Amino acid sequence: MPNPIRNPLVGVLGAGQLGRMLALAGYPLGMRFRFFDPTPGSPAGQMAEQIVAPYDDYKALESFSQGLDVATYEFENVPVEAALFLSQRVPVYPPPQALSVSQDRLTEKGFFAGYDIPTPPFAGVNTLDELKSAIDKTSLPAVLKTRRFGYDGKGQSVLHTMEDAETAWQAMGSQPLILEGFIPFQRELSILAVRGIDGATLFYPLVENHHRDGILRLSLAPAPNLSTSLQAEAEGYASRVLNALHYVGVLAIELFQVGGHLLANEMAPRVHNSGHWTIEGAESSQFANHLRAICGLPLGSTAPLGYSAMLNLIGTIPDPARVLAFEGAHLHLYGKEPRPGRKLGHITLRTDDPSILGERLALLQKIIK
Amino acid sequence: MPNPIRNPLVGVLGAGQLGRMLALAGYPLGMRFRFFDPTPGSPAGQMAEQIVAPYDDYKALESFSQGLDVATYEFENVPVEAALFLSQRVPVYPPPQALSVSQDRLTEKGFFAGYDIPTPPFAGVNTLDELKSAIDKTSLPAVLKTRRFGYDGKGQSVLHTMEDAETAWQAMGSQPLILEGFIPFQRELSILAVRGIDGATLFYPLVENHHRDGILRLSLAPAPNLSTSLQAEAEGYASRVLNALHYVGVLAIELFQVGGHLLANEMAPRVHNSGHWTIEGAESSQFANHLRAICGLPLGSTAPLGYSAMLNLIGTIPDPARVLAFEGAHLHLYGKEPRPGRKLGHITLRTDDPSILGERLALLQKIIK
Repeated sequence: MPNPIRNPLVGVLGAGQLGRMLALAGYPLGMRFRFFDPTPGSPAGQMAEQIVAPYDDYKALESFSQGLDVATYEFENVPVEAALFLSQRVPVYPPPQALSVSQDRLTEKGFFAGYDIPTPPFAGVNTLDELKSAIDKTSLPAVLKTRRFGYDGKGQSVLHTMEDAETAWQAMGSQPLILEGFIPFQRELSILAVRGIDGATLFYPLVENHHRDGILRLSLAPAPNLSTSLQAEAEGYASRVLNALHYVGVLAIELFQVGGHLLANEMAPRVHNSGHWTIEGAESSQFANHLRAICGLPLGSTAPLGYSAMLNLIGTIPDPARVLAFEGAHLHLYGKEPRPGRKLGHITLRTDDPSILGERLALLQKIIK
Repeated sequence: MPNPIRNPLVGVLGAGQLGRMLALAGYPLGMRFRFFDPTPGSPAGQMAEQIVAPYDDYKALESFSQGLDVATYEFENVPVEAALFLSQRVPVYPPPQALSVSQDRLTEKGFFAGYDIPTPPFAGVNTLDELKSAIDKTSLPAVLKTRRFGYDGKGQSVLHTMEDAETAWQAMGSQPLILEGFIPFQRELSILAVRGIDGATLFYPLVENHHRDGILRLSLAPAPNLSTSLQAEAEGYASRVLNALHYVGVLAIELFQVGGHLLANEMAPRVHNSGHWTIEGAESSQFANHLRAICGLPLGSTAPLGYSAMLNLIGTIPDPARVLAFEGAHLHLYGKEPRPGRKLGHITLRTDDPSILGERLALLQKIIK
């Protein structure tokens, strides 16, 4: 392992809230930051240098790369070409291949399958005929998704009947698609893992996630009723992905729990919304650990501190005074203008007593509505 | 209490590490920051707008004040005139009177005495004759100090004999001085208090402080063997100061423990080095609470989370990799160039088990040397 650089200048593609929380975690470690994002005044750009240019502006990427010690990304739809261009000038972590795998749902599912990580049934769809034979494979209901650029439930259609299939094909058929079998699952979970340049790997405890309208609303960490066997299964799958990709940094894998087992849904090669609770709820946060990993520093403990519930603030910001008056609530705002469906912040409710978390959470949810 | 302002723009006089840690605590609350400091590239200026000008440049102060919602200071030797100038344009907390009291050791000790807060014996000294009669009052040994602009042990001389007194007078006599009786104390403690605009007041537990060469090296929080009566005595004294000054924000008072009682040594009308442990070691940090107070937001809980030891990094920075590999250690670097005697960062060692803190601390101290 090379000696870590003192006060590294970290370049980050994307300057959203994930970048902002990376900077907040990295400044205390003496790190410096430069962001690249097409949107001026982005959440991270409010507290660090930001280069404003499209991701395919190679001249801007060239000047962005000058003097960087390491580069990373906080947005998985960054063009792989931009990451590859940078990787010829400065180490880029996680490896651009991780970006490439995760950007295409079909490649991603195929990648999981290739490493014996179970997934719901899936099939690529390029024609209406292929859609019909895909339905034979997955049966109905099933979810038709665009292969690329989907996030927060965008670009998805649930098919219950063959008529649904034809309608969805009309609407979505101009792009490469994937059909995924709809598995009745008990709950959605995610595993966050971090791997250092030296291969050292740590895992946070599984988190239970609750979505509405395709957007994450609530994470409970550690996931309630978490068995050691379920945690071990998740860690095993994450390890295969990390090692296969020679991964460096934080990786998130979203999973479905079916019976006592897990199916992989998708992965994100970056810090992840379902890991925000780690800022107060774990010994070291996912943001600090991502930076430690990519800068060649030792990883920090992923041990949870008590029990946490993370609530996303979507579309509107509650009165900060009411949130701050709530015992155990930690407010995080991203410096974004309110807009329907937009992630504007989150609140982590942390407690040492798991028996009161549910009740406290219900009270907090009333306040933020 | 007025409605708190959303996303307030907070102006801070001074852009050192205290300002830096204020910004890191305030960004998650949606706050924005503008700093004023004569030194370019200061610790806080690396992550926020910084106006570089001397504190007596009223044109620069005028433009600094434009658009601010509230102003504060992180350096108690800011000229009172600068704070008063700002207070005619924007609310300034803590009140400039607190600055004025704390800048002059004689005024400060007189202020404590005026509110029946015990102090070591003291006397103002303007002539050699006054020094001699001051010694009659305090007896020897005693400490001769400049009344103004002393910090980290600078501008102090310990007098053991009348010869010492004459020598010290030759060296220091051109400025207004104070002689303070040297009280044999068991230990040095500090109390951090925070008071909101509505008068709500909270206290952190007393902290035990260890100095070397006049600079704080180590704080233990909560102070070991802390009795409720000692805590109550400290809170009583702090309350008198807060109420007398209609104080808003965080206040620190340094105290000597003599027997089972306390003597006030000095106060700092700002966040304080002996409160850095609160970042990981308390439910809400002193930085977040100072900002909550001055922005009219509800205060956060000051309850400690386990047991903390805060070690200052003076003059040199240890290998970050070794610190980060140390279980329970949290590194904070200030973005400053190493220089002898300079505070470059700190490490907070936090644990839930007080019985291991001493041993862990001894190991950590070996590493950082």
